[in-house]
Amino acid sequence: MKNKNDFGEFEFIEKIKKRFASSSSEVLLGMGDDSAHLKSLPAGLLVTVDMLMEGVHFDLAYCEPEDVGAKALAVNLSDIAAMGGTPKFILASLGIRPGLSSEFMDRLFTGFEILTKAHQVTLVGGNLTRSPHSLAIDIVAMGTPGETVFKRSGAKAGDLVAVTGNLGSAAAGFHALKKFGRAAVTTHSEIAMAQIRPEPRIKEGKELARWGRVTSAIDVSDGLAAELGHLAAASQVGFEIEAANLPALPSTKRYAEEAGQPLRQWQLYGGEDYEVLFTFDPKSGKPPVPCTAIGVVTAKANGIKLRSSEILQPLEISGWDHFKS
Amino acid sequence: MKNKNDFGEFEFIEKIKKRFASSSSEVLLGMGDDSAHLKSLPAGLLVTVDMLMEGVHFDLAYCEPEDVGAKALAVNLSDIAAMGGTPKFILASLGIRPGLSSEFMDRLFTGFEILTKAHQVTLVGGNLTRSPHSLAIDIVAMGTPGETVFKRSGAKAGDLVAVTGNLGSAAAGFHALKKFGRAAVTTHSEIAMAQIRPEPRIKEGKELARWGRVTSAIDVSDGLAAELGHLAAASQVGFEIEAANLPALPSTKRYAEEAGQPLRQWQLYGGEDYEVLFTFDPKSGKPPVPCTAIGVVTAKANGIKLRSSEILQPLEISGWDHFKS
Repeated sequence: MKNKNDFGEFEFIEKIKKRFASSSSEVLLGMGDDSAHLKSLPAGLLVTVDMLMEGVHFDLAYCEPEDVGAKALAVNLSDIAAMGGTPKFILASLGIRPGLSSEFMDRLFTGFEILTKAHQVTLVGGNLTRSPHSLAIDIVAMGTPGETVFKRSGAKAGDLVAVTGNLGSAAAGFHALKKFGRAAVTTHSEIAMAQIRPEPRIKEGKELARWGRVTSAIDVSDGLAAELGHLAAASQVGFEIEAANLPALPSTKRYAEEAGQPLRQWQLYGGEDYEVLFTFDPKSGKPPVPCTAIGVVTAKANGIKLRSSEILQPLEISGWDHFKS
Repeated sequence: MKNKNDFGEFEFIEKIKKRFASSSSEVLLGMGDDSAHLKSLPAGLLVTVDMLMEGVHFDLAYCEPEDVGAKALAVNLSDIAAMGGTPKFILASLGIRPGLSSEFMDRLFTGFEILTKAHQVTLVGGNLTRSPHSLAIDIVAMGTPGETVFKRSGAKAGDLVAVTGNLGSAAAGFHALKKFGRAAVTTHSEIAMAQIRPEPRIKEGKELARWGRVTSAIDVSDGLAAELGHLAAASQVGFEIEAANLPALPSTKRYAEEAGQPLRQWQLYGGEDYEVLFTFDPKSGKPPVPCTAIGVVTAKANGIKLRSSEILQPLEISGWDHFKS
């Protein structure tokens, strides 16, 4: 953990080093040197990096610092989960804007700690720097692959498409948080928490990797439609999705009705659900994790289509950034 | 390489994937999935991350996009060099502010390419996101350790302290660029380039790792005084530095005189020289790389002192962020 900032006093970094000290035999050198030194992992290493930016991915008007820290980790662990891996190490690179106190930063790191403890992940390094305007949180997540490694390519016409959990919850929560502020955490707890505290599907990813029958996978960060677009491009296939099959929490459905908002749009374009979207050959049997079959893989020439009220129509795949709406 | 941004059109990411396509057998999966998958490296992995922020670490008033890209990589490769390692892989996480064109981004990646080609490093992943105000570039660098791995701890009283290359060049260059703008690249080429295009000391780091006699090391990013402070804290030692021995380029000395600026301050606090500062037992003989002995390691109780004109005085170790001056 290096310091490039007048905020990041030596004491803060020393405190973090003590707080996140690890006895993992896989960490030869952790925080405190120019680089971390990690032991060689036999199956190789999965590595991903993702930046959360204040005003784009989170809003301190309704997110507590713990929420922001936990979410920054969750979205990266989700990328490891979507490959079927087990997260092991993280690094945290922070751009800290004026006005954020040392207490705020402590609580942000508490958010990290919630996830590192829950998933036995070790913070091995990072850096602090000054940011002129917006808090920037860039997390590097590293992990070991499971029995199989999922790619975006590999889906074949005839495969089924399934998704873990539910869709649209995070978008519904976002709507409620914008409307009611932090109070939504109490009044609309389930959907608000889906937005501010997403849970990476690590257990599910590992079970699917053990199953060995996943032909392609991706996590739902930008929205179902956008992710289908990524799978279609990488696998050179098309999709037929059944609108009626798209899973939603009862609380999401209720809130959509209550707010007079289109549930379907949230499910397709809301994003940030951090579920695992995957394909598999129906001959492989039933996937070993709770999930919902939402459609089939078709030939590329068919494009990406949505069947709704018996009508099959092309699905607009471009992502819908709900932070801009 | 994932896209969370309306800037980062599919086409841009596809272009980058083509441009940085690698045939390295160590990369099992590169860009294009939720995580990269790297082959296991027998000696383990060095990993570091560092963020450059517009308005803090670089200024587009006098930096071309290629400079910014090259510098973002250089500062991270420098961290691998300061551990004695060989950089292998990088990931690039970018927060892109409004007003930066696709052409700008192309040229930023050209800056990355200059370093990846020079050091046979493979871009294996990253992500693009929107940043409301400032361009943020967070680079993850990974590498293999050399024959020995340098730590900040390990310096012993009686060791010599040495530094590769010269000190104060980047700070002199910064001064010239602020004063003359981009023209300084022509009128004061050597120091201006030291500021905008630092060269990581990878070759030197590897040779020192092979030598096996380095007792502690760090790269000079925050300034000599700050780095001595880091080594002192980690190794529980003090230092006596000889001001007269601090190496400087003739062009830096000339510019300091010409501008009426204190060369010594630049050498001690300027930072961004990205040289390797290291300690070794004098009985080990001469280090196998061009370097200058600048002092000795003392007992911790002596603190960090600078001898200048025969007078030994405590050295103020706190870093001096020259972007704020």
